Amino acid sequence: MKQEHQTRLHSLRALMQSNGCEALMIFSPANLRYLAAYSGEAACALITQDQLHLITDYRFITQAEEECAGWHCYCRDREAETLGQVVQKLLLQSGVRQAAFEAAEVSVQNWAQIAQDSAGIQWTPAPLWTEQLRRRKDASELALIQRCAAIADQALAETLPLLCPGISEAEFALELDFRMRRLGAEALSFETITGFGERSALPHSIPSERRLREGDLIVLDFGASVGGYRSDMTRTYIAGEPDARQQAMYNAVTQAQQAALAVIRDGISAREADLTARAVLAEHGFAQQAGSSLGHGVGLCLHEQPIMTPKCEEILRSGYVVTIEPGVYIPGFGGVRLEDDVLITEHGYQLLTHSPQPFRLT
Amino acid sequence: MKQEHQTRLHSLRALMQSNGCEALMIFSPANLRYLAAYSGEAACALITQDQLHLITDYRFITQAEEECAGWHCYCRDREAETLGQVVQKLLLQSGVRQAAFEAAEVSVQNWAQIAQDSAGIQWTPAPLWTEQLRRRKDASELALIQRCAAIADQALAETLPLLCPGISEAEFALELDFRMRRLGAEALSFETITGFGERSALPHSIPSERRLREGDLIVLDFGASVGGYRSDMTRTYIAGEPDARQQAMYNAVTQAQQAALAVIRDGISAREADLTARAVLAEHGFAQQAGSSLGHGVGLCLHEQPIMTPKCEEILRSGYVVTIEPGVYIPGFGGVRLEDDVLITEHGYQLLTHSPQPFRLT
Repeated sequence: MKQEHQTRLHSLRALMQSNGCEALMIFSPANLRYLAAYSGEAACALITQDQLHLITDYRFITQAEEECAGWHCYCRDREAETLGQVVQKLLLQSGVRQAAFEAAEVSVQNWAQIAQDSAGIQWTPAPLWTEQLRRRKDASELALIQRCAAIADQALAETLPLLCPGISEAEFALELDFRMRRLGAEALSFETITGFGERSALPHSIPSERRLREGDLIVLDFGASVGGYRSDMTRTYIAGEPDARQQAMYNAVTQAQQAALAVIRDGISAREADLTARAVLAEHGFAQQAGSSLGHGVGLCLHEQPIMTPKCEEILRSGYVVTIEPGVYIPGFGGVRLEDDVLITEHGYQLLTHSPQPFRLT
Repeated sequence: MKQEHQTRLHSLRALMQSNGCEALMIFSPANLRYLAAYSGEAACALITQDQLHLITDYRFITQAEEECAGWHCYCRDREAETLGQVVQKLLLQSGVRQAAFEAAEVSVQNWAQIAQDSAGIQWTPAPLWTEQLRRRKDASELALIQRCAAIADQALAETLPLLCPGISEAEFALELDFRMRRLGAEALSFETITGFGERSALPHSIPSERRLREGDLIVLDFGASVGGYRSDMTRTYIAGEPDARQQAMYNAVTQAQQAALAVIRDGISAREADLTARAVLAEHGFAQQAGSSLGHGVGLCLHEQPIMTPKCEEILRSGYVVTIEPGVYIPGFGGVRLEDDVLITEHGYQLLTHSPQPFRLT
């Protein structure tokens, strides 16, 4: 087992012990990857103080045995035994009678069957211990996120010359996605957003046949995925010359992002960071057009805690990787968003995404 | 509302009524698309005999109102009211006190909150009524699956000249994926499988840096997605000349697929179709190396019911779209799989995937 997985399991077991939890059942694919290095599907894990069980079936058992060093990989015969029966057997063998499970990660139907077939085990929903540990990225995680970010930076640089009037949102997205994959992205971090003109104001637009015209705002929001980790970056450009309103939006968002970056460091609350950027947008007259949050954690999932809203009291800590992405959105007119991924450090931050931020395309 | 959605809702309401179900809560994204034409996220639906509610929040309300003609779209303020409170309000307004919900599509945690906040409603898990309706594809669904299949056929024809010794699995997958997207696929149906040599025996391999060599078996399994629907096709080739064992595998699988196609029609059981193909593989000496099922339904989900195993007693009906994909897998040596999508008809089937099936690359 790699050192980082030993460390993660040690921390998780300490949380379990201090909370009186004898065993934890994991369903979340991201948590299985974080704790067991498992990247397949159709699996769950049982963790006690002295045992590590990864339960899957014939389709994924070879992959599990290759990936999950130090784990006991159980190949369940789905015709012969239910998951609940396997879980009951493994827990009772360990003398465990009380266990916690990830209630946000299993369906009502599946859980009803597991609980019914594991009679003798007293189950309780588990706190988000693994998600708590995942906030702080270790060196191996940081290296993967940096690789994702570097791929996205390079792909954008290679694709940007195609961003000329006449190209459609879907065409540009395809070119950008192709380059990310060719540069080593195992997958896209999420479905690329390429919003032109009035469509740049949509927070979740699907690339369309809309073609780029002079005077359009252009919002590109995209990322690469490597080893299960993700990057997430947004750039906004103007096709041709901006009008006064577009320029004002861009100036406000640039200054809001810089203001947030100037205050973030270990110890600041998410709320304080958000309000710092939000105040700049308000000074520029965009209080009502600002987005709902400054940013979010990013790692094995695209959107991780903390979600940095004005109400989020959580303290940012060294080692967290978060997006800083203030935005201004005017329905029917357009939007401006600038987003970078940063590592929080003791006295500030380290920038992980490095694409330049010109407004005008050259 | 389009005619097909009216028909689907009429059928669903008839099932609800005959089962004494006053209201049904839908969480499945595929079912929301099937019933309400909704393609966004973060939504659920409430269906009664005279009301249709689509519940989402500010991020997706515009999309819901554009897509869900005939539905009442409710924009929930997530700061002010829980989903359970909204559901309770809407159901009590309709005089409903008993309702069913999709227990396989909501997490234990989310459901606990909904059930707690909708006091006064008596909930029961719903049967898979919508999934039952989705087995039989209507004309609009069939047209979309045909378009997906045609994109995959064309992309393969364009990419096949690149399948020469020296190209890696990942490189070929990228070229194939790029062409599917360029030809109009909104997304991939699933992550493309390109297994070379011994890796062709893996049922779920991720494209690797493994390079094609003379004598390798090559399994390509891929599909396109349009409008939420999917295609799913596998072809197997040999790089250069096959040895006797490779040729025997290919002959067995070809004949098994033809045997299954010769018997499928409205009225045959999934089991009978599977056993027909399985018997051919056994005659060729591959009884122990055959895959676990002949195929599966395909539509809004990649894997839909019926899953055509030797134990599946379900009767295939006209209008079902299923894959026919016998395979032989020899760990450490290689695999052969041939997969086509077919529409079941009264007297046989209609082929939806049309790529030729040569064994040798020319």
